[in-house]
Amino acid sequence: MEASAGMQASIETSRVQALEQQVQALEKRLADLEERAPEDRVAIIIFSGDLDRALAAFIIATGAASMGQQVSMFFTFWGLAVLRNGTQFSGKTIPQKMMALMSPGSSKSLPVSKMNYFGAGAKMLRGMMKDKNVNSLEEMIALARELGVRMIACEMSRDLMGIREEEMAAGLECGGVATYLADALKSRTSLFI
Amino acid sequence: MEASAGMQASIETSRVQALEQQVQALEKRLADLEERAPEDRVAIIIFSGDLDRALAAFIIATGAASMGQQVSMFFTFWGLAVLRNGTQFSGKTIPQKMMALMSPGSSKSLPVSKMNYFGAGAKMLRGMMKDKNVNSLEEMIALARELGVRMIACEMSRDLMGIREEEMAAGLECGGVATYLADALKSRTSLFI
Amino acid sequence: MEASAGMQASIETSRVQALEQQVQALEKRLADLEERAPEDRVAIIIFSGDLDRALAAFIIATGAASMGQQVSMFFTFWGLAVLRNGTQFSGKTIPQKMMALMSPGSSKSLPVSKMNYFGAGAKMLRGMMKDKNVNSLEEMIALARELGVRMIACEMSRDLMGIREEEMAAGLECGGVATYLADALKSRTSLFI
Repeated sequence: MEASAGMQASIETSRVQALEQQVQALEKRLADLEERAPEDRVAIIIFSGDLDRALAAFIIATGAASMGQQVSMFFTFWGLAVLRNGTQFSGKTIPQKMMALMSPGSSKSLPVSKMNYFGAGAKMLRGMMKDKNVNSLEEMIALARELGVRMIACEMSRDLMGIREEEMAAGLECGGVATYLADALKSRTSLFI
Repeated sequence: MEASAGMQASIETSRVQALEQQVQALEKRLADLEERAPEDRVAIIIFSGDLDRALAAFIIATGAASMGQQVSMFFTFWGLAVLRNGTQFSGKTIPQKMMALMSPGSSKSLPVSKMNYFGAGAKMLRGMMKDKNVNSLEEMIALARELGVRMIACEMSRDLMGIREEEMAAGLECGGVATYLADALKSRTSLFI
Repeated sequence: MEASAGMQASIETSRVQALEQQVQALEKRLADLEERAPEDRVAIIIFSGDLDRALAAFIIATGAASMGQQVSMFFTFWGLAVLRNGTQFSGKTIPQKMMALMSPGSSKSLPVSKMNYFGAGAKMLRGMMKDKNVNSLEEMIALARELGVRMIACEMSRDLMGIREEEMAAGLECGGVATYLADALKSRTSLFI
């Protein structure tokens, strides 16, 4: 009996040792996987400077934020216009001036992507939204800020178009493609709008 | 010997206890991770009302469905036109009537996003598809239904444009941004088209 | 004492057995989860044939590749023009010829999505990029190749438009929607541009 108890104990020891190793290996694999798993995060690129697309972006962004997701919106190329705050011409090159002249100076003057007819389409869409008590784009932008949505202006496009910091809305972050990717690669959902 | 077996046993006991705790902790972490892992699911927003983009959306949707993914397509803004079923004017406000007048009444009259030339481009694309025995958009929509692809019409855009249920294809679900996000946040792939 | 050691050992045995089963079950669940977890991978559809959107796609693709992601770019519909290498007319049907005539013959002649004015906009954007020492699209394409970005031309669109292999840049892969989805479903981020 003593002997068998001793032998039993030593069999247990090797099984316990094996288990300890297995559990350690599992922990390592699990930690790896936890690193790789998507976070509660949504990343949206706003490339377009159209009112209708900007609305879609903010509806998704504020919706996701109110569902508990960390949301980042990355404004690039034409999308910078959504967060513009007036236009200045001094200190710009001629192509930059031309681009400034033909781009919307703020969210208020964004066109719609279809049937814009020199702004009539955008005015009509805004009117229809008001009729239905849908928040305006400007109200959605304010709501997004309240909900803690990060808004990042693409440095490279800003630099390219010669848009100065004072031409952009206050309180924006600046960043490049690495800033976007750092968020996007950890996100559940990433959209290009 | 007895003593050492007893001691051994009590050492084992504490090692076994430690293991039990570790395994329990692993189980909790694993269950958390299982919650967070993406499902076999694809979510597509169809914002555009262009024939070429609608085709791309349905090619991806039916492809994913036949690879065993649960697919949801969320039709919003101009994208509603893809699933329209004729146009009615009565009971609409003037802007809603104007929008109805200028929007395609069904998938048959969708324009292409480039070189549309008042419909010639769309007709040409449909002709080229027929020449190559590629399924038409209407056949792809039917295939998507057969494959169990969920098609959801955005309630807010429908309401905004005053599009009635009878103006939409039969058998659609209705939903808002929360419906889309509920699927998108669990998806492997989410696209904005 | 002997008896209690023996009893102790047999209690341990059953606890060890239970643990072994639990660990085995954990391993199975973990392996399942590892299968389902996203890889370090980014998949981008380039549907658009616009210079500005192609630039955005290559900035994201090369950025992701230099951050250690496996990147696939899937060129479809108008996006094929980004990797065109001249235009041939012989052997094409009339609609295919018309489409070839009106589509850019290479990356050099891509329009911009807004304010193109028959190519002036694209020329201006290229000039602004040069002023700021931003890589040209052609340099970005070369960089993407160096970084091992996979570039896949959509077989179906090529066939539809009658674009021959010799009309496309050298060294491209060919594939269909299944090729794209195989990558996209394992990706951290998937975009439709």
